[in-house]
Amino acid sequence: MPQFQRMALGLEYDGSHYCGWQSQPSGCGVQDHVEAALGRFLESEARVVCAGRTDTGVHAMGQVVHLDTDILREPQSWVRGGNSHLPADIRILWAQTVPEDFHARFAARSRSYRYLLLNDAVASAAGHGKLGWFHAPLDTAAMSAALQKLLGEHDFSAFRAAECQAKTPVKTLYEAGISSRGKVIEFHFRANAFLHHMIRNIVGELVYVGSGRHSLAEFEAIFASRDRSSAAPTFAPDGLYLCDIEYDASYGLLAARGRSPFFA
Amino acid sequence: MPQFQRMALGLEYDGSHYCGWQSQPSGCGVQDHVEAALGRFLESEARVVCAGRTDTGVHAMGQVVHLDTDILREPQSWVRGGNSHLPADIRILWAQTVPEDFHARFAARSRSYRYLLLNDAVASAAGHGKLGWFHAPLDTAAMSAALQKLLGEHDFSAFRAAECQAKTPVKTLYEAGISSRGKVIEFHFRANAFLHHMIRNIVGELVYVGSGRHSLAEFEAIFASRDRSSAAPTFAPDGLYLCDIEYDASYGLLAARGRSPFFA
Repeated sequence: MPQFQRMALGLEYDGSHYCGWQSQPSGCGVQDHVEAALGRFLESEARVVCAGRTDTGVHAMGQVVHLDTDILREPQSWVRGGNSHLPADIRILWAQTVPEDFHARFAARSRSYRYLLLNDAVASAAGHGKLGWFHAPLDTAAMSAALQKLLGEHDFSAFRAAECQAKTPVKTLYEAGISSRGKVIEFHFRANAFLHHMIRNIVGELVYVGSGRHSLAEFEAIFASRDRSSAAPTFAPDGLYLCDIEYDASYGLLAARGRSPFFA
Repeated sequence: MPQFQRMALGLEYDGSHYCGWQSQPSGCGVQDHVEAALGRFLESEARVVCAGRTDTGVHAMGQVVHLDTDILREPQSWVRGGNSHLPADIRILWAQTVPEDFHARFAARSRSYRYLLLNDAVASAAGHGKLGWFHAPLDTAAMSAALQKLLGEHDFSAFRAAECQAKTPVKTLYEAGISSRGKVIEFHFRANAFLHHMIRNIVGELVYVGSGRHSLAEFEAIFASRDRSSAAPTFAPDGLYLCDIEYDASYGLLAARGRSPFFA
């Protein structure tokens, strides 16, 4: 019988200085740094599987990864030992043993993202790279009305990047909403899964609606057309945060949620 | 009669990658970048005077500077033209003509700072450099009680850096308070002026009180002693934000307040 333990880890990172989650030959991926740090901690090769592959410049407050290891350590030791080998803009928030049938990606029931958009005449300096920005006033009521049209199971091809490798463009959006705090507009999204660039493409189109460039009827027609070329361009990655991954309660990861973005 | 115009500008900056506000021979000060950008915009040498000289790693949401120039431009032109020559982590928020008797530093009635402290087991990755951090639970009621002892006019020598060049250690603290949002504790301070490192030294001592290392009586004795050596070490610059400068209402800068830190 093989003697190994499956571990789940919660991660927070600032994506500004990395070329996205995924491991790259040049070593610029967040995954490269996490695997190198865990390898040094375990003194053994470490390969992790993540719940959601974030793009260049996208942040995570609650990324979840798993790995198998024959080296048994206390959860707090994983957190402290792993963090001691990581750059300060990547942190392990928690570690927990999980059953062998747990899988960070395939066991995930839903993913939650937030997009933070500064709506002000001048872009953010102190929040540079952490907040999207649009300079002209936005009608949040109009954006909210458009956003509600996306709820439920739909073909999201109009918001799908050309290079998307998902098997199907049909996804189920369980929750979506908009709230404001001062000059920051926060969009939140929870779906079973997201297509490549889906949220940034939706935010780009919502900004067109909020600024009056597209009407609600035009928004609905674009969504129904499943034609990416008719929709607004992809919005900047700066304000996008992977916040929570939801798993079956039996895994006991309910308390292992990510922190809120401090910018909201 | 000399023909010149005094301009006041509001600035926001992320202090993480600069060696403080003040101009340095190496050019690493925020002031160096602001003067270089304005010089390119005006096609003329520009020297600015600021309201509050921030240290290395300290941020500003509402720094105010003034300068005299014989080049007349619309306020919006100062904002757009100046920003076009600045790095993305320094922004001009507003520009306004002011009377010749306005002085960014000497006309300031009070300065407001906030300090944002993450109180959680693991430091912030996404807010790295933007939030102070303390790992063990803090008693905010105890910290608040200590903070109230500092209100009013006092000799703040116990919280004064050795290299402080202020003429007097006596300052008047008009407002001080603590609030919490999630795991972030926010301290706010408004005073006529602050000594060098005063807020970071106060925060360091408050963390001693909040973690039970110093009692309220010990805090009061240290403050009364005017002895820097008995107080807690200087806390990290990461969570410190210069937020507002208050001027006489006659200058019409009332609307020219800085934005809130997005992290609060």
